[in-house]
Amino acid sequence: MSIIKLENQIKEKKSFLCIGLDIDLNKIPNHLMEEEDPIFSFAKDIIDSTNKYAVAYKPNIAFFEAYGLSGWKSLEKIINYINSNYPEIFTIADAKRGDIGNTSNMYAKAFFENLEFDSITISPYMGKDSVEPFLSFDNKYVFLLTLTSNSGSEDFQLKQISNTSNKLYEDVILTSKEWKNSQNIMYVVGAKNVKEIARIRKLVPNSYLLIPGVGAQGGSLMDICDNGLDSGLKLLVNSSRSIIYSSNAKDYAEKAMLASSKIQEEMERYIIEKGII
Amino acid sequence: MSIIKLENQIKEKKSFLCIGLDIDLNKIPNHLMEEEDPIFSFAKDIIDSTNKYAVAYKPNIAFFEAYGLSGWKSLEKIINYINSNYPEIFTIADAKRGDIGNTSNMYAKAFFENLEFDSITISPYMGKDSVEPFLSFDNKYVFLLTLTSNSGSEDFQLKQISNTSNKLYEDVILTSKEWKNSQNIMYVVGAKNVKEIARIRKLVPNSYLLIPGVGAQGGSLMDICDNGLDSGLKLLVNSSRSIIYSSNAKDYAEKAMLASSKIQEEMERYIIEKGII
Repeated sequence: MSIIKLENQIKEKKSFLCIGLDIDLNKIPNHLMEEEDPIFSFAKDIIDSTNKYAVAYKPNIAFFEAYGLSGWKSLEKIINYINSNYPEIFTIADAKRGDIGNTSNMYAKAFFENLEFDSITISPYMGKDSVEPFLSFDNKYVFLLTLTSNSGSEDFQLKQISNTSNKLYEDVILTSKEWKNSQNIMYVVGAKNVKEIARIRKLVPNSYLLIPGVGAQGGSLMDICDNGLDSGLKLLVNSSRSIIYSSNAKDYAEKAMLASSKIQEEMERYIIEKGII
Repeated sequence: MSIIKLENQIKEKKSFLCIGLDIDLNKIPNHLMEEEDPIFSFAKDIIDSTNKYAVAYKPNIAFFEAYGLSGWKSLEKIINYINSNYPEIFTIADAKRGDIGNTSNMYAKAFFENLEFDSITISPYMGKDSVEPFLSFDNKYVFLLTLTSNSGSEDFQLKQISNTSNKLYEDVILTSKEWKNSQNIMYVVGAKNVKEIARIRKLVPNSYLLIPGVGAQGGSLMDICDNGLDSGLKLLVNSSRSIIYSSNAKDYAEKAMLASSKIQEEMERYIIEKGII
């Protein structure tokens, strides 16, 4: 998808909400287990009920791989369902891949060509030639991990690099700007690090930031907007569990709609308060 | 698999050869395309012909994901085939995964429980809580990326960490030793960095090192053994393309056998020369 379409969608919906599809069979409503493909049925209902308020969906690939073949089948059905019924929606394969060049090529083929995702999350640890294969596709994007929202982010991402004023995550961002087709890179920034969100916003003023960790992981939308939202509107904020598991009874789709609409309203308020639209 | 079984196998076969299964439909012999599942047929023949000389197989997960559902089906058949027919063989899912805790749990379930691999390769970028879920399984192991064999390894892995004498890859190793069940961690070390192999060997004298990059990627087995092989014999050296694509005619299995037997002979020579056995 052309990035212009995502920009337009954000402006039209006054929303930069991404909904994470971390679908766990132990957490979805019991009555769905009678369906032929409970994961797909659940995802379909969540997507149908929330797409007015969201601009992107982010299936978490681990949750599909955990169910083997049937999980991959569900994933294929979900991405096809979104692309066929809501072609304006931006899709992110949350896969955290990254390997030597010829292997990254195969992952890119898997997620961009076969599954037709618009973008994929990638770990930067193996450097330039592990990421560039994903950057060579037209209208496909990489979300590069920089500073993540988990406690382990402190282990390496916050380490200071000698003879520079940069921590590792900053070095990742600055280095990645030199890579071929770096205009196709977006950045994953954990929501608990609001000061760092502001810092990253300055390092890459024209790149999209994907901020997970709102909701179940405890991040505050107001803090994020104060530090990461500017007139460029190049922001996606992800919420997974706090939307899709709003209820585990038969009203789950309605409750997910309410939860997403509440977040969208808050986003609209910040967009207006900041005079962006 | 208990690690003792791997140790015994290395001593019995006088081999520490791991064969990478990076199976590309464009590279396997043409006549196999008539088979119902060409990837599985090819893998089965390679495994049957080379398992006397190898102690481990390492399917490269990207090459299966690239073929979607049918790729996953082939992967399931291959791991089941190895576990049923050659239970002494150690298996490595070359997946380079790693995500926040609850997601890493799902990946661990996918590769350790459903597919029954003995081990998996993991990227350290997200730190402790992204790796520990994989370490909580009995007789299952993590190969942590440290210094990889690709050119992009220089981008971040070789960066010096402030106020220490360590580069990032050394910091990864030292930090990982503090994690829960760290005895289940093994380390991936790129073959082109022979001095670093010696350095890593000293940092983790009792841990297995997995050294890819021999063969098509240009690493030398003699250099590796001079720097990484000691009486502990805790070493696995991987070769993929230079074994499995020795021939693309009908004699591919025989040629793969010859290529693997040649490497095993060289390994046996170094083991004997160094007076280890």
